Amino acid sequence: MSGTNGTNGAANGANGTASQGAHFRSSPYQPIGDFLSNVDKFKIIESTLREGEQFANAYFDTETKIKIAKALDEFGVDYIELTSPAASEQSRKDCEAICKLGLRAKILTHVRCDMRDAKLAVETGVDGLDVVIGTSSFLREHSHGKDMAYIEKTAIEVIEYIKSKGLEVRFSSEDSFRSDLVDLLSLYRAVDKVGVNRVGIADTVGCASPRQVYDLVRTLRGVVSCDIETHFHNDTGCSIANAYCALEAGATHIDTSVLGIGERNGITPLGGLLARMVVSAPEYVKSKYKLHMLKEIEDMVAEAVEVNTPFNNPITGFCAFTHKAGIHAKAILNNPSTYEILNPADFGLTRYVHFASRLTGWNAVKTRAGQLGLAMTDDQIKEVTAKIKALADVRPIAIDDADSIIRSFHLTLQQPAAQSNSAPVEVAQ
Amino acid sequence: MSGTNGTNGAANGANGTASQGAHFRSSPYQPIGDFLSNVDKFKIIESTLREGEQFANAYFDTETKIKIAKALDEFGVDYIELTSPAASEQSRKDCEAICKLGLRAKILTHVRCDMRDAKLAVETGVDGLDVVIGTSSFLREHSHGKDMAYIEKTAIEVIEYIKSKGLEVRFSSEDSFRSDLVDLLSLYRAVDKVGVNRVGIADTVGCASPRQVYDLVRTLRGVVSCDIETHFHNDTGCSIANAYCALEAGATHIDTSVLGIGERNGITPLGGLLARMVVSAPEYVKSKYKLHMLKEIEDMVAEAVEVNTPFNNPITGFCAFTHKAGIHAKAILNNPSTYEILNPADFGLTRYVHFASRLTGWNAVKTRAGQLGLAMTDDQIKEVTAKIKALADVRPIAIDDADSIIRSFHLTLQQPAAQSNSAPVEVAQ
Repeated sequence: MSGTNGTNGAANGANGTASQGAHFRSSPYQPIGDFLSNVDKFKIIESTLREGEQFANAYFDTETKIKIAKALDEFGVDYIELTSPAASEQSRKDCEAICKLGLRAKILTHVRCDMRDAKLAVETGVDGLDVVIGTSSFLREHSHGKDMAYIEKTAIEVIEYIKSKGLEVRFSSEDSFRSDLVDLLSLYRAVDKVGVNRVGIADTVGCASPRQVYDLVRTLRGVVSCDIETHFHNDTGCSIANAYCALEAGATHIDTSVLGIGERNGITPLGGLLARMVVSAPEYVKSKYKLHMLKEIEDMVAEAVEVNTPFNNPITGFCAFTHKAGIHAKAILNNPSTYEILNPADFGLTRYVHFASRLTGWNAVKTRAGQLGLAMTDDQIKEVTAKIKALADVRPIAIDDADSIIRSFHLTLQQPAAQSNSAPVEVAQ
Repeated sequence: MSGTNGTNGAANGANGTASQGAHFRSSPYQPIGDFLSNVDKFKIIESTLREGEQFANAYFDTETKIKIAKALDEFGVDYIELTSPAASEQSRKDCEAICKLGLRAKILTHVRCDMRDAKLAVETGVDGLDVVIGTSSFLREHSHGKDMAYIEKTAIEVIEYIKSKGLEVRFSSEDSFRSDLVDLLSLYRAVDKVGVNRVGIADTVGCASPRQVYDLVRTLRGVVSCDIETHFHNDTGCSIANAYCALEAGATHIDTSVLGIGERNGITPLGGLLARMVVSAPEYVKSKYKLHMLKEIEDMVAEAVEVNTPFNNPITGFCAFTHKAGIHAKAILNNPSTYEILNPADFGLTRYVHFASRLTGWNAVKTRAGQLGLAMTDDQIKEVTAKIKALADVRPIAIDDADSIIRSFHLTLQQPAAQSNSAPVEVAQ
């Protein structure tokens, strides 16, 4: 029931059934309040208009960028990150245009750790700069070719310049999980000392695992006093889990993009992260973000980059709240908390109990008969369930087919006994 | 380079560049050999034909089931799990048919913890039974209504019966992460004592987080001596990460389905799990599984259940190996390890460096010019790169457009200086 106090309340908070909560809280495997954890007070840096623009299919014209920025702002994200104005002339102009919208969200742009880029960015009117440089041996050797001393010196120069202009500044390494730990920590300590607002950890290649993330963020938490931002690619499918573990270890900000779009197969998706967080911190998430807008925003971005929402997307995938197997359906009909950790109503969506398959059970069919306004005894329901299963064994059946079987069976019950063996299959419309 | 020794070698093993490996191994944040971990010796229980059949769109006829079973067997999965023969008459017949194929993989079927279901299953010729019962207060109250004493007594009866028939048996709780820990452990200890082959932990509702999974499996590892199987739903996007943490904590078997299909938005996907595991245990994964078959198997199942492979699917999503931003492209062209933790060639796929966008850089364009057989100086390449970015600022451009700009620019270099200002945009085909 709580959910405002650290990570307490998980499933219970999400479903909110007091009588079950009492028992549920007795499990020693629920997280307890943890002073390190920011699970119930994280901030979102929404990067659809930066990382998302690096998605293979992305081309956002000015109008689309403004539409997406306004929607994300209304949804409640804390920051909106834009492509560097150094990328192209139009990128610079779009950055200026979005800064002039007067959004509640702070506007950031993402630039290389380079004084020329920083100067160009400061001119656009953004609230802050996200500065980045590669620190792994891979990137130092094959990308920019600079050593750590040079990186530190440049970083401090750029940070001090941005601060002198009164703007917020984040300094991030790139490919942090393949960077030397000691180099990384001493770099972060140095930029923390000159007053950077956030340091960033980025799993640029998507190699990090959840417990590695926890360990690195936990260590960094002990080294710097500023905020900690994290950025996770999804190459090995761990971007949501890694973001969650980062928050548990003391990270304060998570980078997301709508549907996770970005380089390669992308980063932590906004919707997927919120699926995770609404389970862990329901009150914080529900009070801060307009969850009902999620589907509309995903549809907007999907259309702009010409992709379909994945069939298995958390929350908005077409079957995220569909229950099929008989034992699942039975329990869901008794109490949705049995097989649902997320409440579809929180997102303006509805659940669906699939009863037209060979895996169906009589409880689901009984509910359907009720919806159709047909009164039958349990034995009669079991009989018609057997008929539905028999047809579904032969071919895929639609709701209409199953409904026809139920209606036809119900009709035979009203008629003389002699006709009650007529095959419902044949009368299906 | 290693990868056979616990979880060592991660990124290095995946990319195999010795000179970088030396530096890379110096990071204290690489996992070290861990006697608990089964990251380099896990087994896959492939459940497309059981959990996958619970996916909203799934209807597998006998022929399709056999095709999928044969493909999974050839791919190298250890077990193939089938829908309970108690579900329907055709389910029973299909179970018998698949048992008769003589596959290398062991055939399992998934049944309720009930003697009637167990007897029916034993008759089909399967190698083992995966027995399941709900243990959370939610399910005990709203699904089967049994108490823990009854569950334990029935479990032991069913297990002893299956063992008496010479078959393998797993006993799993359902909704394990919302079950009382002490109840759960004492139940597992009891079934372990009567010689169950595996106990199973199931996150039936998809609520578990990675560190909860690690803790629960780690605790269970100290309580039972049998194998530990795990099953993770993906409602909050953590199913791959949770499977990985389970293996780190000592789990031995992971349930998967192709594309993750299952109840609601499904479970740990086969391909996504292998993306994670090939990074962590490259030699084990590459020697055991025919990774080149992954895309073909995913396509087969996607067609059978009428879905598209998600655009952002690990490995096989259309852009999983596409690099777009200028700094990414530059580094990738120098050395793919810079921004790739997975090697597309391991899966019979290829990488693609996107150069037709406003985020492109001159290194990518230089490579493209080389592919087109056009010799230019670096200054000339930078000039034509500016032209590509300028057009891409105005509208989305295709490879053909960018190629036309490059060719046209190259042509002007061969002609009298007076014509060198002709706008390449206008001559684009």
